[in-house]
Amino acid sequence: MERIITLTTDFGLRDPYQGAMKGAILSVNPGVRIVDITHLVRPGDVLEGAFVLLGASRYFPEKTIHVAVVDPGVGGERKPILVETRRFFYIGPDNGLLSPSVREDGIVRAFELTNRDFFRDEVAGTFHGRDIFGPVAASLGLGAEPGEMGQALEKILALDLPRTLPEAGGLRGEVVYIDTFGNLITNIRREEVSALDGAALEVTVRNAALTGIKKTYGMVEKGSPAALIGSTGYLEVAVNCGNAAEALGARVGDSVSVRPLK
Amino acid sequence: MERIITLTTDFGLRDPYQGAMKGAILSVNPGVRIVDITHLVRPGDVLEGAFVLLGASRYFPEKTIHVAVVDPGVGGERKPILVETRRFFYIGPDNGLLSPSVREDGIVRAFELTNRDFFRDEVAGTFHGRDIFGPVAASLGLGAEPGEMGQALEKILALDLPRTLPEAGGLRGEVVYIDTFGNLITNIRREEVSALDGAALEVTVRNAALTGIKKTYGMVEKGSPAALIGSTGYLEVAVNCGNAAEALGARVGDSVSVRPLK
Amino acid sequence: MERIITLTTDFGLRDPYQGAMKGAILSVNPGVRIVDITHLVRPGDVLEGAFVLLGASRYFPEKTIHVAVVDPGVGGERKPILVETRRFFYIGPDNGLLSPSVREDGIVRAFELTNRDFFRDEVAGTFHGRDIFGPVAASLGLGAEPGEMGQALEKILALDLPRTLPEAGGLRGEVVYIDTFGNLITNIRREEVSALDGAALEVTVRNAALTGIKKTYGMVEKGSPAALIGSTGYLEVAVNCGNAAEALGARVGDSVSVRPLK
Repeated sequence: MERIITLTTDFGLRDPYQGAMKGAILSVNPGVRIVDITHLVRPGDVLEGAFVLLGASRYFPEKTIHVAVVDPGVGGERKPILVETRRFFYIGPDNGLLSPSVREDGIVRAFELTNRDFFRDEVAGTFHGRDIFGPVAASLGLGAEPGEMGQALEKILALDLPRTLPEAGGLRGEVVYIDTFGNLITNIRREEVSALDGAALEVTVRNAALTGIKKTYGMVEKGSPAALIGSTGYLEVAVNCGNAAEALGARVGDSVSVRPLK
Repeated sequence: MERIITLTTDFGLRDPYQGAMKGAILSVNPGVRIVDITHLVRPGDVLEGAFVLLGASRYFPEKTIHVAVVDPGVGGERKPILVETRRFFYIGPDNGLLSPSVREDGIVRAFELTNRDFFRDEVAGTFHGRDIFGPVAASLGLGAEPGEMGQALEKILALDLPRTLPEAGGLRGEVVYIDTFGNLITNIRREEVSALDGAALEVTVRNAALTGIKKTYGMVEKGSPAALIGSTGYLEVAVNCGNAAEALGARVGDSVSVRPLK
Repeated sequence: MERIITLTTDFGLRDPYQGAMKGAILSVNPGVRIVDITHLVRPGDVLEGAFVLLGASRYFPEKTIHVAVVDPGVGGERKPILVETRRFFYIGPDNGLLSPSVREDGIVRAFELTNRDFFRDEVAGTFHGRDIFGPVAASLGLGAEPGEMGQALEKILALDLPRTLPEAGGLRGEVVYIDTFGNLITNIRREEVSALDGAALEVTVRNAALTGIKKTYGMVEKGSPAALIGSTGYLEVAVNCGNAAEALGARVGDSVSVRPLK
């Protein structure tokens, strides 16, 4: 079966970098299929990259190789790693970028990439995507053994995602991502909302207080805000046919509360 | 032969959405080839999406499966549909998005997608691209019968594209799209312009009056505007080595006239 | 073996153009693999397109077919060409776009594309990417002979890249490209810098004077500028975890000097 490599980076789409990385992958493994998740992570924003990787990588077929490179410390102390999870492989810098995804899927084994046989002949100090991560993924897709690629690692760096807190019979979280549509995506998981059930709920963010958790945008009037469980499994605030971030003046980091209605 | 699925959406390129949709497709059909037409339709702009789909989908090989998702009514009343045309399949919401393309190619059969066997196990109310349209396209690419996927539909929603009007021996249309180069693309078709032939023609938009229909941008001086039949078969106003929208201060919706020169 | 076609254009990602070009390629050669280098070259900026093509195309497998279209003179006097180099094929307009890449790899043969049997049936005066370059690349991928596609050419148009000049025991170049991270990429090659070795070097650009050539961004403090040999082999000025273009107020065309430290 054809193997799939996905790419999640902050390389942008104007520069030669993502193309060079694909060329380096295909030079090792011309038959592999490369799928872009995104190259538009904000430069150096590891948390944003982690969120996008988490929201997309889980939908791919088993054995997919996910390569993620948001790597402000490239060439420095942080380790290049390969993590085998229950269903996937994840490859990238050990800076927390892979951490939410590999924890969700369940870590089986992790390795520091140390075997230079799997790197490009010359490794630039500033472009491990092209010279280490891409070629390693390409070799893995050809059937190379993860154990041959480096030293087993006891643990990888965990990313501190903001946590939710209990508050007044409900809980408080925050906006962690704003998408292209202006939807406010929070760190409050579907399960946490379900645990508050029984009573009807109220969601507050900025000056808006929203009653009930809707199933689709269309359950409120056009132009009105609604709280719902978004497609990635987190509580989200949206405006039907509109842009919630603009309408509410909301930003990443804003506090969001979920409480039983009085 | 390998099947092709194209994607035309307003999901953007930063968020996990288009990647998640590709993962969902490949999980059903790992061998299918996915080609992006665009993910940068203005959020919720069905008319713009319809125009881009029309301008690109016709050039693909027969049996290509075109999936388009610009879907502000997702999860509401609008039906998810599959349309078989003379050469292609089109899949998306029944909100007019597919209408110009399927009419151009010729509708053979249309179905409302109702058979949940072809959906993802869980269908989010806000993401039918990942949970319905993508998986349905993937199954179709594996050889599933359109007739098994839902109920036959008598008709689909037609999109009201702005129409041209006769005017003073010529005709009047409008700017319907402005491209990356700043070219003004109108709703006036090549055939309508040809029907005015004989005399030389004058094209007017904003304060510019352009004499004759040119074959290439280079037939006028650098920096000068020209009217020509663009590559998609519509009358277009461009500036040689420049940006017509900026130079003329033109916008979508501006009136454009074509008249025999006095 | 599956053949690869790469695309480097200024078509943008919103419009139907790159999708139409891919459709035209796949209609001729449904089995070919298409890889985007970029579609975001600044409209009509041949120099920028040449730089991106140079920085990415060299990393692909042998026999890759590189198609590049930044073509403000489309439909005019400039010739459509195919260049066979030592390892690759390059296809595009003869306006200098291909010139740095083909010179680097070594020209074997060049042809003007004149055989209309390899074009789309109708050739629009404004879209040779879809109607000439794409279909020619697709046929080449199927095994067509370059010699059948047109007339041999003695020479192709050379692009005048800005040159470096000797200055005060060192040399002077300029910023030729600013990437997504704000890194300033110059026209000063690794070999030119190496030739100055022995003494420690100082790099100056705008008001900044940087001591030494670093190996990675992390060799200076966060927020500090550093000079290094970038991943494409040119001298580059970056800011560790920051944006050098913003920090230094630098722009394309700015003068950059490399001198032995006094």
